[in-house]
Order: sequence, then C-alpha cells, then structure tokens
Amino acid sequence: MTELRIVALEGIPEIRPGDDLAALIGDAVARTVGSLAQGDILVVAHKVVSKAEGRVARVSDGEHTDAILAETRRVRRRRDDLLIVETRHGFVCASAGIDRSNAPGDGWIVQLPVDPDASARRLREGIGSRFGLLPAVIVTDSFGRAWRQGTTDVAIGVAGMSPLLDLRGRPDARGRPLEATMIAVADELAAAAELVRGKATQSPAALVRGYEAPAGDGTARDLVMPTDRDLFP
Amino acid sequence: MTELRIVALEGIPEIRPGDDLAALIGDAVARTVGSLAQGDILVVAHKVVSKAEGRVARVSDGEHTDAILAETRRVRRRRDDLLIVETRHGFVCASAGIDRSNAPGDGWIVQLPVDPDASARRLREGIGSRFGLLPAVIVTDSFGRAWRQGTTDVAIGVAGMSPLLDLRGRPDARGRPLEATMIAVADELAAAAELVRGKATQSPAALVRGYEAPAGDGTARDLVMPTDRDLFP
Repeated sequence: MTELRIVALEGIPEIRPGDDLAALIGDAVARTVGSLAQGDILVVAHKVVSKAEGRVARVSDGEHTDAILAETRRVRRRRDDLLIVETRHGFVCASAGIDRSNAPGDGWIVQLPVDPDASARRLREGIGSRFGLLPAVIVTDSFGRAWRQGTTDVAIGVAGMSPLLDLRGRPDARGRPLEATMIAVADELAAAAELVRGKATQSPAALVRGYEAPAGDGTARDLVMPTDRDLFP
Repeated sequence: MTELRIVALEGIPEIRPGDDLAALIGDAVARTVGSLAQGDILVVAHKVVSKAEGRVARVSDGEHTDAILAETRRVRRRRDDLLIVETRHGFVCASAGIDRSNAPGDGWIVQLPVDPDASARRLREGIGSRFGLLPAVIVTDSFGRAWRQGTTDVAIGVAGMSPLLDLRGRPDARGRPLEATMIAVADELAAAAELVRGKATQSPAALVRGYEAPAGDGTARDLVMPTDRDLFP
C-alpha cells in the first residue's frame, strides 16, 4: 500500500526567546513516535521558530503598519487595513507575515525569521545529531492566495530537500511530455501538515513519514516566482 | 497520537467516456483498504472524472487556443503561449484547466468537468451507496499560483463537507482572536493527496483517513474569491 502518515508532534511547550527549539522538537519526536526514520520530514510552523529566535516585538496599535513596512521590500496592494506586500525574503503575503495572534502577549507581534532556510538548516542539524539521522525540515506560514479564499500553509524555509519536484522531460502514460512540469511539493507538505497540526490543538510541528522528498540542497527561495515571470506584480 | 493517513487507491484502470467511475473507485477502495470508514475523504483527480464524463475533445494544434477560450469567462493575463484565464466556473488558472498530457490520444485534450461539484456529489452518492457510508469527496486539479513557482493540487469540486474551516471568533492560546480566520482545508487535502498520488505512479485517487472535515454542504465555488475582494484582477 502506498501510504503517507502525518503525525502531530506532542508536548512542545510555549516557546520563549533563546529556547533550544531543536531539543524541544527532538523531545517531541521521541515522545510521539520514538525516533526518526530514514526519509522523515519535519514540518514546523514559523511561529515557534520566530519566538525561539527572538523575532518578536512590542508595538502599539499605531506602530503596527510601520512594523509591517519595516519587513517589506515593496507594497503590492493596499485596501483599508490590508497590506499585501513582498517581504525582504521575496515572499508575497499579507502584513509581511506579521501576526498578533499567538504572540507573547498583548501588544506583541511575531515576525518571520530573518532567514527561514537557515532556521530550517539549524533544526535539521540539531535534531539530526540527536537521532543520528538528518531529517528534511520545512518551516511554514499560513498565506492567503490570489483569487482563492482561505489560507493554506506554505514553505518559507527548507533544508535537506528540493522544494520542487521537477518532472521536465518525464513522459505521461502515453509517452507525451507532461504539461505541468514542476510540483511545489514543499508547499503541499506544509499544507498536509497544517491539517494535522490544526487538528491537534496548539501543535506547532508535525512529522511526515512515507514521502520520498526530491533530493537536493534546496531553499524556499526556489519557490519564489522570478520577477521577470511574475504576471501579477 | 493525532495522525492522518493518506492512501493511494490502487488499480483504477484507464478511464473512457461512459465508464462508471464511482464503481471503479469503489473497487479500488475495496482492493486497497477493504472498506470505507466513517469520516473518510476521497480525493479524485479531475482527469478521470472528465474522461468518464466525456469532457475530452480532439483539436488540432491550431485550434488549441480556441479550445481554451471556449472554456474561458475572461482572460486575465497572456504571455506568449501562456493564457491565465478565469474559467466558466470562476477558477483562475492556466489554459482554463485544459491539458494535453494523459489525454485519450495524440491531438486530444481533457477539459474540466462542466460542474465539478455535481461530479463530486455523484461520486459521493455512488460510492456511498456501495459501502453504506457517505464519504466526503474532493475533485482536484493542479493549478499554478501567483508569485510562487510550481503547481499545487487544489479543490475544484466538493461534496459532503465545507471546503473552508471557519475560525472566526475562535481565540488563540491567550484569548486573542486569531488573525488568519479561514483555512482552505479542501485545498490542503487536495495538496496532501497529490503527494501520495504522485508517489504511486498513475494513481488518480487517494483516501484520507483521520481528518475530521468541516461539516456542511459546501461547494468549491466557496473557494473562489469574490470579484469585489479580488486585488489581482
């Protein structure tokens, strides 16, 4: 049977700046599934990464827009309080990923990690050294989309895998080249993990077992559409 | 353990116009997992739905653009051969969802179902009557996205569930209202199923077990951003 299992990691505590997140996620892996298996992928919501890295700030309501713009490379659209921006990483999302929910306290915000790929690499190495096995790691956020209602979780940081499955040149069942040639599997893994993280109240991390991630040393920047191909600037 | 399982359904044959797809998927459910369980969700790639419904056509290369425009309500962007359009259903995607790969033969195209929600309802009822248990059904396609590379599978038809998980009014861990209030879980389920369908070569359907879908009699049109809130027309 071709099967994928996604498990919510249990017992990760409220994270504070300076916490050793790799150790805490490692504890949760041991608690929930015993150990890592070859090919396991860890999917971690950026909020705990940002908190551990001190990417939180106290801002007044009047400073909220300034806090968004400080993380912004370019404002793409603005409607009333809604700002769709391109972050300093190149991601297009609402509010530059800044969020007041699940923040450390009233009047606090959580920002995106400065370098979410580097965050993913640190988790990969920290958790990997404990289990003697390097997992792929995806750091995620919930993004809205153009044209579609509702958020889905996407990858904003990646380590130990390519975020894209490249099918260029691969034929369909009848030998004709496939038309959809690049699949954003890191985004699909982020979305899949959200389903189980959301189901387990307050679980910031999930383990995916049974998916062979595309090999490679990719980065989430690979998921960003290059400017010259962006039809919705 | 909070766990989600996604299983590729095995042995679904090449589909031809007029085939009883509900029966064939039912056979695959029986073959792969024995029977349906309460809460199971079936995720089915539209290509087999479209083929069973006769939504295929033979067009010359010169007629390909006309075939796309025939399914189009409005062209959103055009660059060389790439057409990003709003389909008659309201979905924004490349080529109105028309695809030449995995088509019935050279020179053939596969179109989207005329009413993918109705297709999902028919599968729900057909498969449900066999097992005495009505599954939620999601019909999917692979869509590109604004600003991000690669396709992800999304829901274009839904039956037996709400495609959106509405968290409005629900508090975070500290009692503050959540900022991201609607999660497009049907799209996340479509994406999750693609991972296992893609892994199992040529599997057009997957079963998701262990996810409690939002109750409701929703439609995939709920996932379409209303025109007055679309910032990227």
